[in-house]
Amino acid sequence: MKLASTLDGRLHAVLDDRSVDLTDALGLRPGAGGPLLAFLERGGSLSDLHGLDLDALPSQPTDPSRLAAPIARPGKVVGAPVNYLDHQAEMGEQRTIADYGMFLKATSSVIGPTGSIRLPYLDVRTDHEGELGVVIGRTAHRVPAERALDHVLGYAPVLDITVRSGEDRSTRKSFDTFTPFGPWVTTADEVPDPDALELRCWVDGELRQHASTADLIYGVAELISYTSHVMTLHPGDVIATGTPAGVGPIAAGQRVAVEIEGLGRLDVGVTDEGAIAYTDRPGRR
Amino acid sequence: MKLASTLDGRLHAVLDDRSVDLTDALGLRPGAGGPLLAFLERGGSLSDLHGLDLDALPSQPTDPSRLAAPIARPGKVVGAPVNYLDHQAEMGEQRTIADYGMFLKATSSVIGPTGSIRLPYLDVRTDHEGELGVVIGRTAHRVPAERALDHVLGYAPVLDITVRSGEDRSTRKSFDTFTPFGPWVTTADEVPDPDALELRCWVDGELRQHASTADLIYGVAELISYTSHVMTLHPGDVIATGTPAGVGPIAAGQRVAVEIEGLGRLDVGVTDEGAIAYTDRPGRR
Repeated sequence: MKLASTLDGRLHAVLDDRSVDLTDALGLRPGAGGPLLAFLERGGSLSDLHGLDLDALPSQPTDPSRLAAPIARPGKVVGAPVNYLDHQAEMGEQRTIADYGMFLKATSSVIGPTGSIRLPYLDVRTDHEGELGVVIGRTAHRVPAERALDHVLGYAPVLDITVRSGEDRSTRKSFDTFTPFGPWVTTADEVPDPDALELRCWVDGELRQHASTADLIYGVAELISYTSHVMTLHPGDVIATGTPAGVGPIAAGQRVAVEIEGLGRLDVGVTDEGAIAYTDRPGRR
Repeated sequence: MKLASTLDGRLHAVLDDRSVDLTDALGLRPGAGGPLLAFLERGGSLSDLHGLDLDALPSQPTDPSRLAAPIARPGKVVGAPVNYLDHQAEMGEQRTIADYGMFLKATSSVIGPTGSIRLPYLDVRTDHEGELGVVIGRTAHRVPAERALDHVLGYAPVLDITVRSGEDRSTRKSFDTFTPFGPWVTTADEVPDPDALELRCWVDGELRQHASTADLIYGVAELISYTSHVMTLHPGDVIATGTPAGVGPIAAGQRVAVEIEGLGRLDVGVTDEGAIAYTDRPGRR
């Protein structure tokens, strides 16, 4: 099932050109994190979704212009720093995640497929990083890799937008709008192997990143296992699994798209509205 | 007003030896983040609290054994890396926050005053860092320092527990139980100057840290301003303002206490239950 949240706070199952509204059938109410997080936080599971009779529920033509991030405010957004062999080489890095650890992005940086990335600085490079996003469905605390995928609700394209300056990753990756996420979450039962998905990322139609998640250094199960040994993962938490080679700068007026096999295409604009000079950031001495 | 959340999800105003239960008067319902976050998320403000007639509300003797973290799951926990002159010298650092940026801690690491810190590793040093915590009351997006304190709900002692290994700060500071927070939030109107508070931190009764927030390199207003230029701060978000000199290791069986002038004393235990050898962490190659 493809689970989409809409800008008016409703949860839809996207079926090609039509979307079935699940909100009332599931008794969901609007919440700050969106309807999918509300569903997960009250213990909702895949079997609850599969128990619905979609034919009996109201549907309407799918309207991409009405889609919000599947989860507007996850409990956390965890990122993998260097997790593709080619990107590891590109960045001149030798170490892996057991050395680096995972980083956190501010949950306030999430936007949906109709949002735009806002560049914070006029004079510092800001990069696109197209990634496979994993959405947790069931609490994961110190789970072994062999059972880690049991804790996944589903998968979605994510962009991990990053300023190339010297601050802590959490700062460089947490500006508002820096985590485009969507267009929907494809539930895990429709993804036979998350470690064998083609991922492509374009800037203004130019293919910048093209890889398979088969090239992840830490596959999805191992990433969940590692992370769950540091921090308990709760339903609705999102893991950005790392980006392949081809990372590069984005500029105002461009469009950035990431498409993952079977998971849809996330396509957002870029603006420098409100951008300032790096030397004008507050607190500089 | 001293705002305390209880383990059964109620919001109290602590008045010396008695606590007034505000939950029903404010119409609060249980939520994952606790009653204070629920109050803030529906737009609650200090004036709503000050409009209550505390004498007319039910009260009971204050029971420290029933206190939860004031906010169990904040939207984000933002930390300041090196923000006291003496700790800057102790760590051999020259740079400040405009160079470092702020870091993020997992919100799942928060515990209240009745919790215990769990050491993750048997053989890696884990340190206490006693800090002034700032709780945001009103959304802050690119606010100037001169108006930043208008966005504060209140203040509380925080411990920023940190593993001294090589990973990203977000990993080293995000293990479950690594953000003790409480015992309550003292509202901003009772804190005339957050940059002039005595802070003390003890391990098993031995004074390890003793400083004044007057020695913060970036004071509270400047920290809020800087952070709000990176990420929008939402009601209930917590900023840990950094730790003074005296940071040191903690061990199982000890107690760690941090007390800040006018804000109360947070006193938690330490356990190594479930701790593993560092080389046994998953994913190591």
